[in-house]
Amino acid sequence: MYKLLVLPAALLAVSGATRADEGQWQPHQLLQLKAELKKTGIAIPAEKLADLSKHPMSAIVSTDGCSASFVSPDGLVVTNHHCAYDAIQRNSTPEHNYIANGFLARTRAAELPGGPNLRVYVTDKVEDVSARVLKGLDAMSGRQRHEAAQKRIKALIAECETDKMYRCSVPSFHRGAEYYRIRQMMIRDVRLVYAPSDKIGNYGGDIDNYEWPRHTGDYSFLRAYVGKDGRPADPSPDNVPYQSKDFLVVSAEGLKAGDPILLAGYPGRTSRYKLPVEIRYARDHAYPLQVAEYQADLDTIASATKGDDAAEVRYASVVKGINNKMKKTQGLLDGFARKDLAAIKDGQDAQFRAWYAQQPNKSATMLAELDAAIAADMALSNEEFAYTVATNSDLFKSARTLYRLALEKQKPDEDRKAGYQLRDMSFIKARMTRLEQSYDAKVDQARFAAGLARYAKLDAASRPQGLDALLPSQAGVAALYQQSLLGDTAQRVALMDRDAASLAASDDAFVKLAVKLHALGMSLEERRMEVDGNLERIVPQYMAAVIAWKKSQGKPVYPDANSTLRVTYGTVSAYSPKDGVTKGPFTTVEGIVEKHTGKEPFVAPQALIEAVKAKRYGQFKDPVLGTVPVDFLSSADTTGGNSGSAVMNKHGELIGLNFDSTYESITKDWYFDTAITRAIHLDIRYMLWVMKEVDHADNVLKEMTIKYPKR
Amino acid sequence: MYKLLVLPAALLAVSGATRADEGQWQPHQLLQLKAELKKTGIAIPAEKLADLSKHPMSAIVSTDGCSASFVSPDGLVVTNHHCAYDAIQRNSTPEHNYIANGFLARTRAAELPGGPNLRVYVTDKVEDVSARVLKGLDAMSGRQRHEAAQKRIKALIAECETDKMYRCSVPSFHRGAEYYRIRQMMIRDVRLVYAPSDKIGNYGGDIDNYEWPRHTGDYSFLRAYVGKDGRPADPSPDNVPYQSKDFLVVSAEGLKAGDPILLAGYPGRTSRYKLPVEIRYARDHAYPLQVAEYQADLDTIASATKGDDAAEVRYASVVKGINNKMKKTQGLLDGFARKDLAAIKDGQDAQFRAWYAQQPNKSATMLAELDAAIAADMALSNEEFAYTVATNSDLFKSARTLYRLALEKQKPDEDRKAGYQLRDMSFIKARMTRLEQSYDAKVDQARFAAGLARYAKLDAASRPQGLDALLPSQAGVAALYQQSLLGDTAQRVALMDRDAASLAASDDAFVKLAVKLHALGMSLEERRMEVDGNLERIVPQYMAAVIAWKKSQGKPVYPDANSTLRVTYGTVSAYSPKDGVTKGPFTTVEGIVEKHTGKEPFVAPQALIEAVKAKRYGQFKDPVLGTVPVDFLSSADTTGGNSGSAVMNKHGELIGLNFDSTYESITKDWYFDTAITRAIHLDIRYMLWVMKEVDHADNVLKEMTIKYPKR
Repeated sequence: MYKLLVLPAALLAVSGATRADEGQWQPHQLLQLKAELKKTGIAIPAEKLADLSKHPMSAIVSTDGCSASFVSPDGLVVTNHHCAYDAIQRNSTPEHNYIANGFLARTRAAELPGGPNLRVYVTDKVEDVSARVLKGLDAMSGRQRHEAAQKRIKALIAECETDKMYRCSVPSFHRGAEYYRIRQMMIRDVRLVYAPSDKIGNYGGDIDNYEWPRHTGDYSFLRAYVGKDGRPADPSPDNVPYQSKDFLVVSAEGLKAGDPILLAGYPGRTSRYKLPVEIRYARDHAYPLQVAEYQADLDTIASATKGDDAAEVRYASVVKGINNKMKKTQGLLDGFARKDLAAIKDGQDAQFRAWYAQQPNKSATMLAELDAAIAADMALSNEEFAYTVATNSDLFKSARTLYRLALEKQKPDEDRKAGYQLRDMSFIKARMTRLEQSYDAKVDQARFAAGLARYAKLDAASRPQGLDALLPSQAGVAALYQQSLLGDTAQRVALMDRDAASLAASDDAFVKLAVKLHALGMSLEERRMEVDGNLERIVPQYMAAVIAWKKSQGKPVYPDANSTLRVTYGTVSAYSPKDGVTKGPFTTVEGIVEKHTGKEPFVAPQALIEAVKAKRYGQFKDPVLGTVPVDFLSSADTTGGNSGSAVMNKHGELIGLNFDSTYESITKDWYFDTAITRAIHLDIRYMLWVMKEVDHADNVLKEMTIKYPKR
Repeated sequence: MYKLLVLPAALLAVSGATRADEGQWQPHQLLQLKAELKKTGIAIPAEKLADLSKHPMSAIVSTDGCSASFVSPDGLVVTNHHCAYDAIQRNSTPEHNYIANGFLARTRAAELPGGPNLRVYVTDKVEDVSARVLKGLDAMSGRQRHEAAQKRIKALIAECETDKMYRCSVPSFHRGAEYYRIRQMMIRDVRLVYAPSDKIGNYGGDIDNYEWPRHTGDYSFLRAYVGKDGRPADPSPDNVPYQSKDFLVVSAEGLKAGDPILLAGYPGRTSRYKLPVEIRYARDHAYPLQVAEYQADLDTIASATKGDDAAEVRYASVVKGINNKMKKTQGLLDGFARKDLAAIKDGQDAQFRAWYAQQPNKSATMLAELDAAIAADMALSNEEFAYTVATNSDLFKSARTLYRLALEKQKPDEDRKAGYQLRDMSFIKARMTRLEQSYDAKVDQARFAAGLARYAKLDAASRPQGLDALLPSQAGVAALYQQSLLGDTAQRVALMDRDAASLAASDDAFVKLAVKLHALGMSLEERRMEVDGNLERIVPQYMAAVIAWKKSQGKPVYPDANSTLRVTYGTVSAYSPKDGVTKGPFTTVEGIVEKHTGKEPFVAPQALIEAVKAKRYGQFKDPVLGTVPVDFLSSADTTGGNSGSAVMNKHGELIGLNFDSTYESITKDWYFDTAITRAIHLDIRYMLWVMKEVDHADNVLKEMTIKYPKR
């Protein structure tokens, strides 16, 4: 699935040529792609698409880690089922199991609180602040440069957030070559309106994750609420639906193979500009270790929760998350084995270097400095990985956060580390609270102990100096849990207000451990700032050269994904995973019945099976397929974070929701292979059909503006 | 693969409706299908296709268990690689490994003897002899009827074989409703002309058997030789190439999805007219037992040959054969699980019975008698299966054949059991000789002992009465091998001349065992004659009613396959094994490289890989695929025995060779499901491309008449 997933340290290198479907474009870049857009068949003028204040882009929003869009003037939001999963879960009880049975609010009053982790962000302003961030920085290096940049960024954010209704950020583009300040209205009262049963919304479960053929109805509906003054407000019964100034029209007119599509959302992270040496590091070292680590942790959780249903349920979403990351990392490894990306990058890198060597204004040292900075990054990454393995405990992580917070609070707000400022308090509190949903002492203890055992077996060179001596022994792990109160939510939240001295004197075993490990953690962090600072200095020089090289070939360069709003476009299309076999572009409701075994995750609701068998297709029957489509494939360029992204037809009408990509596509985070890269979308006709024929969600259907096919 | 494979006892029942692609038609039946042929796009007039003396049917031949065709006026025959495998193997030595390296005779003198098991049969006359077989039989029943029919059939054969150049047979059609006498010229000097390496001819091996995508170049060339007088003769250097009166033109013009194809060959056995009760018997009882038996035997062979490379090689083709049968039987079980054929047949059977109940001339007892005859057949089949399990030894089978031969020889030739007449001597001798290629004493001993152990665990009711006491004990098995000379080929052949009394007095342990078990074996055989005689009486009545029922709907009825010449037609077409996935219709040479792992059976010859990578497609590049096709799928109706069948375009030109069907198609032996049933064919362009670019078989290419595409 496609909820945002951050993979190990990302860097830049020469990417492949720009192709028809490749490119996660910043909206303003679309102005350079008028001809391409027209050729693909997009009817909306590039000027309009590039303008965030205009339809359809002003209807595109995000939640934490997912993409979404408004589909009514009353703040109705559609996104993926898996993006609303936490909200569905937190409202579920054994009596009202909304995961198993779905949930439908037939009135506004019946809508359920989404909880502190569910927010809707509406991007309303994007400014190029590169000059303000970068001016004069090139004289500095390493940590000094990094800290100076961070200080300016925090100031830029503070300036923007003077109006409390906004949440601002200053992400770097092209890894530091450019900076944009992004202003988003953060709506923090978001309620659950309607979600189908997970027998629909998660049909196929982890088995089908990243797979095609796919039959998942991965959608759900939320509603953004604001105060009576129209401004974001804390959750309250007095709040009113947000009057979204724009929303997407839903089209049930359908689409067919070859039709153009537009996709807008918030892709999280890609690494399209990696150097060959980085691919080899990931392929031969970092990813195999990471996969083994995921698997070991899953094994520990499985054995620690065995026979304890309650613990198993608590860790279900943790397990799901690890599984998802592991499948993605393994998919990258499989992709690397299938296609020698390093060799492809070698070729591109050689071309770039040949071109660069002929440039009159070239730097004599840039490429050597780049190589050195990358080597330092890889070495430090190994130590960071070892530290993570050694500290695989939610209680330890909570203690560490609490002690760090106390220390940061000693500084003026603007000097604090990002993530520990006043603006972050509600997020930290939410995290401290949320832990109770996915924590069990014996499981956490087993994970911590097992991680320590694995850490002890890692290469001595990758174990941070001094860490071995600071860690508890295997025998000492159990005592930590007996002598800590951090397993209690109230305790964790209360400790947010304690000062550093009081924590340093605490008897709590985990707080003591966090204090003991603090200096070592800080030293890793400082070394990271030094390494990043050097990268931030040299990589933009390199990227600027790459951009110039591409420009000399007449090709625009899109920046790697960084969780900011992007637009991609492509066509509805099948692909061939191997000679003699074609997959997609559509699945149909008959396929749901075909897959139904009655055994999780292949249990379709009886009402759905009956509707299919009775061929009650209604207005959602595709004229070519002769039945209701479920999911479809397109060549659009997506990644994690694009979950829930609006998939639009050439007129900007909603015809699908992005939710995944095929297994063969996973390597696209490093290299976009046009022939096999396909994103998996929910066909909006399936959603509408379920709403009408299975769930009878007539009120929600009625609220949307739906264009039905003329027959 | 598709070499003839006989499955357990076959019976008749109501089949599905006749569809476009369903039907293994007797050539004369094509006259009833003029409209269908035309609709499919076949340009050859039905009158011509129905005439065995005319092109193209006069170019269609068979070998033992396979189909083939003439492709030059000098007796050049093309068939599958797996059909010529024994001939390739018997000519191979460690120094000249024609299996691994392929074989090409650049001159006629270099062509190699195919051995006693390789014969070419040219069908030249087919006569309806139903009246001569059936007249007056209905007054008899059971064994009496069966023996009377057998006597008449033997007389019909003897009459036909007065000219020694012919081999005649009188197979029953519609399980005894009709009989045809088929006269074939049997050419017994057949030589190996050219076979590619098994890296091409068996690429994908057992792993890809019954699978798609497929990349097997399953072809080889033989030549039929006759005496200087133009009549079949024993192998001799003086023989000359047979001047075939007809041959197929080879078309390299190719074909595309949707194109019509014609296929002619010798399908072995189908069971399309089974009753629901028989499907349930196979599904719930016979086939699961059979699969377990195959697996157990394979396990025994594997453990007995472990560490002995020579023994492993000897049993390679035995293992291949068992694997093939097991995969086919398991495929039938999987198909039964996927689609409830019994329920479909229930529906058809009910329709038939409703129709039959309204016929004025209906028999009051026919259906009840049919049910009783089938029940008796199933009960006896269980005992026959048990007997087979208990006697899983090649030495025992040889001894049994020799003793039976001696007993039969006491009778006048015309009274002997079919298979033991003078006309069969050369076949028996070939079998006795051939065993040395696939026999190893310790392996045979292990198989016999393991079979006895499995037999002991079978249902008491299915173990033939008295057999337990006659069988050797586990402890006694080894002694049999120590006290028998039958492991020696010269001994086996010499014993063919011994009389029954001398054998009965023999000291040879296996001959003694055969004598001891003889009476029980005969009793099973006599009961089989009784059961078959009853079936032969009642089933034709039933089939006549079914044919009348179909005729009342305007539908011709094709008989079940019985290893006689049949014609089928269909179109080049992909299929969907599951929702969202399409397979076929073509694979390409790039797919060979894609599958190449360097590990058997996925090792492509280096020269082939280089030709593909260099895109040396020559005249064999498909304009749609942009490369050379390898294999393709069609909807033609085939089964085991159709291996090597000519696949022709609408003009009767050779465009492919049939060699397999997809796994999902295996149930077609019982029920032809138009949506998923696909035969797998070699695209003749791939064969020609390999001949030109890889094997440089220029002399063979030159001998054929090849139509190249106009470009």
